[in-house]
Amino acid sequence: MSFDNNVATKFPKLAPKSPSGELLLASERAQGSFDVNELSKFMYTDDWLQRMYKVLAVLENEPAFDKTDRYYLSRKDKITSSLWKDSRLVELVKEQKWDETDTQIANFLYDQSTPFSLHYNMFIPTLKNQTTAEQKKLFLEPALAHRFIGCYAQTELGHGSNVQGLETTATYIPETNEFELHSPTLTSAKWWIGGLGKAANHAIVMARLITGGKDLGPHPFVVQIRNLEDHRPMEGITVGDIGPKFGFNSVDNGFIMFDHYRIPHVSFLAKYSQVEKSTGEYSKPPNAKLSYGTMVFVRAQIVMGVRFALAKATTIAVRYSAVRQQFVDAASPKKWDNKITETPVLDYTMQQYRLLPAVAAAYACFFTGREMIRLYNLNQDAMQQGNFSLLADLHASSSGLKSLTTTMAIESIEDCRRACGGHGYSMFSGLGQFYQDYLPNVTWEGDNYILTQQTSRYLLKTFRNVIAGKAEPSEYNQTITYLTQFLENPKAKCPATKPSDFSNPELILSAFGFRAAYGIAQVAEQIDRHGRSWNSMLVEISRISKAHCQFVLVRNFIVAVQNDEQLTTAANRPLLNVLRLLASLFALHTMEKELAEFLVAGYFSSEQTAMLKEQVIHLLEQVRPEAVSLVDAFALPDYFLHSALGRYDGKVYEAMTEMAEREPLNHTLVVDGYESCIKPFTVKKSAADGASAKL
Amino acid sequence: MSFDNNVATKFPKLAPKSPSGELLLASERAQGSFDVNELSKFMYTDDWLQRMYKVLAVLENEPAFDKTDRYYLSRKDKITSSLWKDSRLVELVKEQKWDETDTQIANFLYDQSTPFSLHYNMFIPTLKNQTTAEQKKLFLEPALAHRFIGCYAQTELGHGSNVQGLETTATYIPETNEFELHSPTLTSAKWWIGGLGKAANHAIVMARLITGGKDLGPHPFVVQIRNLEDHRPMEGITVGDIGPKFGFNSVDNGFIMFDHYRIPHVSFLAKYSQVEKSTGEYSKPPNAKLSYGTMVFVRAQIVMGVRFALAKATTIAVRYSAVRQQFVDAASPKKWDNKITETPVLDYTMQQYRLLPAVAAAYACFFTGREMIRLYNLNQDAMQQGNFSLLADLHASSSGLKSLTTTMAIESIEDCRRACGGHGYSMFSGLGQFYQDYLPNVTWEGDNYILTQQTSRYLLKTFRNVIAGKAEPSEYNQTITYLTQFLENPKAKCPATKPSDFSNPELILSAFGFRAAYGIAQVAEQIDRHGRSWNSMLVEISRISKAHCQFVLVRNFIVAVQNDEQLTTAANRPLLNVLRLLASLFALHTMEKELAEFLVAGYFSSEQTAMLKEQVIHLLEQVRPEAVSLVDAFALPDYFLHSALGRYDGKVYEAMTEMAEREPLNHTLVVDGYESCIKPFTVKKSAADGASAKL
Repeated sequence: MSFDNNVATKFPKLAPKSPSGELLLASERAQGSFDVNELSKFMYTDDWLQRMYKVLAVLENEPAFDKTDRYYLSRKDKITSSLWKDSRLVELVKEQKWDETDTQIANFLYDQSTPFSLHYNMFIPTLKNQTTAEQKKLFLEPALAHRFIGCYAQTELGHGSNVQGLETTATYIPETNEFELHSPTLTSAKWWIGGLGKAANHAIVMARLITGGKDLGPHPFVVQIRNLEDHRPMEGITVGDIGPKFGFNSVDNGFIMFDHYRIPHVSFLAKYSQVEKSTGEYSKPPNAKLSYGTMVFVRAQIVMGVRFALAKATTIAVRYSAVRQQFVDAASPKKWDNKITETPVLDYTMQQYRLLPAVAAAYACFFTGREMIRLYNLNQDAMQQGNFSLLADLHASSSGLKSLTTTMAIESIEDCRRACGGHGYSMFSGLGQFYQDYLPNVTWEGDNYILTQQTSRYLLKTFRNVIAGKAEPSEYNQTITYLTQFLENPKAKCPATKPSDFSNPELILSAFGFRAAYGIAQVAEQIDRHGRSWNSMLVEISRISKAHCQFVLVRNFIVAVQNDEQLTTAANRPLLNVLRLLASLFALHTMEKELAEFLVAGYFSSEQTAMLKEQVIHLLEQVRPEAVSLVDAFALPDYFLHSALGRYDGKVYEAMTEMAEREPLNHTLVVDGYESCIKPFTVKKSAADGASAKL
Repeated sequence: MSFDNNVATKFPKLAPKSPSGELLLASERAQGSFDVNELSKFMYTDDWLQRMYKVLAVLENEPAFDKTDRYYLSRKDKITSSLWKDSRLVELVKEQKWDETDTQIANFLYDQSTPFSLHYNMFIPTLKNQTTAEQKKLFLEPALAHRFIGCYAQTELGHGSNVQGLETTATYIPETNEFELHSPTLTSAKWWIGGLGKAANHAIVMARLITGGKDLGPHPFVVQIRNLEDHRPMEGITVGDIGPKFGFNSVDNGFIMFDHYRIPHVSFLAKYSQVEKSTGEYSKPPNAKLSYGTMVFVRAQIVMGVRFALAKATTIAVRYSAVRQQFVDAASPKKWDNKITETPVLDYTMQQYRLLPAVAAAYACFFTGREMIRLYNLNQDAMQQGNFSLLADLHASSSGLKSLTTTMAIESIEDCRRACGGHGYSMFSGLGQFYQDYLPNVTWEGDNYILTQQTSRYLLKTFRNVIAGKAEPSEYNQTITYLTQFLENPKAKCPATKPSDFSNPELILSAFGFRAAYGIAQVAEQIDRHGRSWNSMLVEISRISKAHCQFVLVRNFIVAVQNDEQLTTAANRPLLNVLRLLASLFALHTMEKELAEFLVAGYFSSEQTAMLKEQVIHLLEQVRPEAVSLVDAFALPDYFLHSALGRYDGKVYEAMTEMAEREPLNHTLVVDGYESCIKPFTVKKSAADGASAKL
């Protein structure tokens, strides 16, 4: 080339069309009726917020935590930059003397899983919970010192949901006092294992324990997979990365296969079950019920995580919808400086209908997550005293709530992305990669469809118990309460006579309870009286789990805004008012979405349906002026959002163009491939060697 | 390093657990009741299929069309490889003497948009339709010769949906007989323009025509943007790529800004409106109604495209669901070689419910696309004769159908992906990138929410006409027919008394017609009698558009399987039977999804709802054995699908491992970043310089 091709493209210094995003957001913020900061403190506590700002200040100055290039990186560069973040975080924790909460906040703000994530989330916890003292010394101590980097290898190429179908074997060899790990088929390759592909040097491997010729099913082993000196795979092991995924490409999800690979006796995690040396005799683990408590805790965290997911998605979409103006609404034109301007899209009812219920859902998940943690603690105390009466309901609800809320989250992320119009499709929206990375939540920790079966089994069993007079309503078991109420009056009707009646908390709870109970009764009848098979009822089975969990979400929200001690003080009256609006909106929007189930039960009339819809629109109108303040209260910093559309300052278009300037394709004037793929067409052959080509 | 790091990871040669995918798919294929090839020919014609196989044979041997690396490429490599494909296709067309259909098939099979896509789809068609003879010579001829590579620049950073709000100006300068293009603000930057970022040297630019001080709104201009000799941007122009997107990263969507950039008078596309030289006098375009015909044609193509999208997604998910076995269904365990095996997930009702209606929907879109093309041709003939009576209904339905069917497609692609469990999340499923690339369809060519307003405006107007006695039912206007029927009996009830009644074609059509009419009547009442604003009714407005278009989809399917001459021959009886099952399944599954609207109208009773659900499950049972044959009939070659899960031969696990071997991270033993980010933790400082590090 006869010119310098390495010229970066720069936008001219021009302002966007007025009114600017800054002015628009300022006018939105002036409309809010409550103190944003007070609402943030109510949700997070002041302590947590202060810690977050402290950690944020550190990360914003750490090159290893810089997000500037996040949306441009190739897969390989994502892995490399993630490893850098992981190793730097180990140092930062020491330098900054961060405790576990601070470290969690750092990972939360970085907002991207990395190769070491499973080391912290699965490898170390498993080593803590399932090892003997000897094993703690051998495995846990080096893991805490990062000499061992670990992962958790359960899923196989051929088996995910059905853990009992795993094929990898661990055969005890009494002669040498070893276990022999083996992958008998291609489908037995461990697959999807986070951190295994390239980073880990150890793995917890779930393998079928075989001793004395008996197959005892899947059990956990600690296995060294890579050399500690040079990181090469150990002999007898085939290990690598499973390749590109829809998202999560900053993690090296891996595969591993074992070819008669021997590990010492001490590798078998022996806290709960043991294999005796020499004899190979097996002793069983104790009652597994205690571990259900842990599952409840994990799922409470997932529901709290859904709150953050909804908060992030709605923060971006609501702010951008206040900045983005499109069309003049002839019926009520907007004015700015006395000139008619286009209308911010957030003023269109359809946009409100797409976004504001998702804001309400974020708050709903907060209250249910909080309640799950409270019940988890109650239940742990009760179980310590031998009282297992709370466990079944809590565990069953937690399965369905994981399923329901993660599905809500992923749908809302995508709804929010689409509600951002064309720019939602740009990676700079922050919503695209977020959707991609969040998506595994609907499949892992229990596939969302399969999980509903656990919840529904419990619901049907409880229904049969209530009918048989073997279950009494109690404060801790709302399922029994709503089922009992239903059976007392299975032909009940909704008492609403005007739209505002639908905001009555008791009316709402009765309606959700009735609808859940009606569905459960119908399924029970089909199975118990008409002999329908479980398989043929799976569609309805997933519906009753959802109905029950929507009851739980609505109830926890409603109860909190009636009774919460902190909210019902005089000073917090403005918070309470807006949260009550949101509780109604969440409940009624959910009703409208699930309308068929309220109608088929004969519970709502057609007239009441019209009232319900009117009340939803009315609530949207009331929430509309609070919208930007409500998402501000989520207190999600720009560093966390990393979104051109969701910036706190509303400088959407400035950010879009700055981020476009950083696109690597814009670092040269003429694209790679021009010479061979475009020039032969555009520069005529005869002229190509002559004057015009030299221009 | 003291060892060769460049060692590729290879899987051991092991077979998957039996029964293999090959055996499972063979047994599925043995169950089909109809001739797969006959169904393919019915949909595509034998001629099209032969052409496809001919083109396929060429592409499979063309390195520029090789898909092997598709899922591993960085953004930059995607652009480079796309340019290679584009330039090679120009040569192939000549070498192979391909006509337009062959070329379309080549692009269809390659299945990825590229920098030249908009040159063919927008630049050339616009030049063909909107130019004078002089302009054809100046612009169209070089475009056809690829000396000009073009794009179509309409959308701006601040304006997408509202074309009238575009800010770029083109001011006529009578002194020099030029137009001056200018971007007055940052928001006026053209944005999202496919092919503009790096490849195009010309653009059609939509800019506000200003002449004699008057702003005449957006008009099209042909503008040279890059030098033909060396591809550098012209002076006065800022142009580049808008950066990474959620999908579509093989296309260089670009931005452009003009700084008082002059273009000659001839650049103004002057077929319809003109600006007179020297005086700058403007003359208006003729009636725009003719162009609505073209929109109908484009949307018919989109609906046909939805058919392919659904076909692709369901082919992958159905085949994999027949191969993937998970859990033993205790109630009816599967046997293979007399041994109990796990159950293919396609045998679970929930999986059938997720997948088989989407198969049916693909066929529904085929019949509606076909009908739209028939009506388009009828209407073109009618308009030639000055008869515009068909246009309104056809155009209105086409808006809503674009909205409805592309939304159906994107939802089904994602449903199919999730139905593939964990592996659906791997790029090797073929569904991830497909989802990403398909997604813009719900936003472009009219945002799916905004489009519904066009349809509903027509529906409300027609309703008012029917009430006023100003509209007569006719064969070509089913809207008037169902509205008239509704008004004759607005309290009608569904006559079903047993589940199988729901498969009665007349019952189905009456139900869909009634439900659409009821919704329209409700909205009309709210607006016309209660004075509700358009904005406050947007949610219901989008619902009535959907209700109408679901009626259209169902009707076209039902009518075809009653009356199609080719299908109702004796020889095609088996095809007809299976298509009738699918028509029922599509209709009843849609009813169930939209149940609330049938219930709120009082049209279905609770008992009938139970019958409907029973009939859906019954239809799933009947379609189940045909499932693999039905997707085989879509005749989508493995090259097109590029999916490990959807392969015709069922070798799912072999393909997953082969594709994992190709992951670039697996081409070295030890990952980049090991030395700086892992080694400092795992190799103890003291030992690092000593013996163990040299191992």
